[in-house]
Amino acid sequence: MSFPSSVRLVEVGPRDGLQNEPDPIATSTKLELIDRLGGAGIRHIEAASFVSPKWVPQMADHREVMTGLSRRSGVTYSALTPNLRGLEAALECGIEEVAVFGAASETFSRKNINCSVAESLERFAPVLERAGKAGVRVRGYVSCVLGCPYEGEIAPAKVAEVSRALFEMGCYEVSLGDTIGTGTPLKAKRMLEAVAREIPMDKLAAHFHDTYGQAIANLYAVLEEGIAVIDSSVAGLGGCPYAKGAAGNVASEDVIYLLDGLGIETGIDLNALAATGNWITQAIGRPNRSKVGVALNAA
Amino acid sequence: MSFPSSVRLVEVGPRDGLQNEPDPIATSTKLELIDRLGGAGIRHIEAASFVSPKWVPQMADHREVMTGLSRRSGVTYSALTPNLRGLEAALECGIEEVAVFGAASETFSRKNINCSVAESLERFAPVLERAGKAGVRVRGYVSCVLGCPYEGEIAPAKVAEVSRALFEMGCYEVSLGDTIGTGTPLKAKRMLEAVAREIPMDKLAAHFHDTYGQAIANLYAVLEEGIAVIDSSVAGLGGCPYAKGAAGNVASEDVIYLLDGLGIETGIDLNALAATGNWITQAIGRPNRSKVGVALNAA
Repeated sequence: MSFPSSVRLVEVGPRDGLQNEPDPIATSTKLELIDRLGGAGIRHIEAASFVSPKWVPQMADHREVMTGLSRRSGVTYSALTPNLRGLEAALECGIEEVAVFGAASETFSRKNINCSVAESLERFAPVLERAGKAGVRVRGYVSCVLGCPYEGEIAPAKVAEVSRALFEMGCYEVSLGDTIGTGTPLKAKRMLEAVAREIPMDKLAAHFHDTYGQAIANLYAVLEEGIAVIDSSVAGLGGCPYAKGAAGNVASEDVIYLLDGLGIETGIDLNALAATGNWITQAIGRPNRSKVGVALNAA
Repeated sequence: MSFPSSVRLVEVGPRDGLQNEPDPIATSTKLELIDRLGGAGIRHIEAASFVSPKWVPQMADHREVMTGLSRRSGVTYSALTPNLRGLEAALECGIEEVAVFGAASETFSRKNINCSVAESLERFAPVLERAGKAGVRVRGYVSCVLGCPYEGEIAPAKVAEVSRALFEMGCYEVSLGDTIGTGTPLKAKRMLEAVAREIPMDKLAAHFHDTYGQAIANLYAVLEEGIAVIDSSVAGLGGCPYAKGAAGNVASEDVIYLLDGLGIETGIDLNALAATGNWITQAIGRPNRSKVGVALNAA
């Protein structure tokens, strides 16, 4: 048991949190959200997704978002680029970091991106090659690491295999996603241990969802293992596409509260972050899914 | 690190969860709730509070509840009895277990029950004596073990001192309450370690609130220490009187999901419990605060 002395938070609210919102959100609102998150001390913000507006209409303004940003020194603004076309568009916007998105479940991969896991990795190869030439870092996501909406349990060995493939292809970091939030702490530890036998722990991130209320406990468990990068979404923006009305991404405020309590440095101002969560949920008319945000607002 | 092989859940929803509801709840609804909880496999249900209806009008039907119960074999139905008068009334209803309620914070004790911690313990002495003579077990609660709404941080030594006093007075079990939900896992561990130096671990229970989203992580942390009794409230009934609109008691469903995932036996049927949570929240017009309950309902 050795907690990291500091943790890097990767804020995915502007992308993962907003991408499924049915009503259009003004680009100016997204830009203000990103700016406030940077102002609260977050140093890594996933800001947009370079996918076809046919698939994700909410992210259609990716160019406007990436070029409209007020860049803060020391902050990385990244975007999802599932294919070369998306990457080229992102490069035109001066992007410095992108992400690709794989799965540890064959069925999820087929239903989500209409190809096998192996085929998805083949598709990422030219993205990683082109990004490498452009000096742009690539982050790899692996979904369904603690369960799949179609297959149920996922073997830790499968997660390790896909993670290793992404790492060997050149991803500088692999983010392990509990996409449907079904994980519990010991399962999270066992999965992480399997992956960490293939990839150094400091190249891994935890991307946990709170659909079953376990995300903070799961994060505590993997912090015990040495995880030092955590993905989260301010105010728990996003919800769960697989269980309507249920929680999705763990709330950034609740993660920072945990880390503050454990004495782990993040450089993030919890009150400023909670104020941002209250502001954006009011701006888009959504409930604040951060318990810390609600409690601080009530106090 | 040694998890218990089984955990006893103490369901406090019918008392702690309902006591602050502003609108009257029919006694028949309370009785159905208690019966459904027993049907889901819960073996310890705190059913009522023998306090003056002047202070807690929602618990005014304590006699009707305690005498109207359909008792299930192997299930303990307990009630809060802060004084001799309450205890006598409970004894008339054939009660087999009662509870008294102390605090680890002087200011909280004064504001909540208008006396010092030492004075509150003196008041409990005749309750414990009378209960002992009647062959009725007494459970002791200690509130504010991980923080006080007035004093802020509470020294683990103070929690240990009050817990030991209750145990030495004859409480068979001491339940450690994070009344305002401000605890985080390492603080919970340190507090528990201080108390467990005075009282055997198997005489302690964790009563954690989820106001800051940390309850499941805190429970995981104290399970690592060997805690094997957990208090919770179905559907997270109760809310937090110190932060309007915020969460209070950790939801029983979320606790059982955690324990199931850790392979810890409880004898409780999660689906039946979640159905009970959905039923009672609809019956009283409250949001379901169990993430598991909401997710299972959506699935």
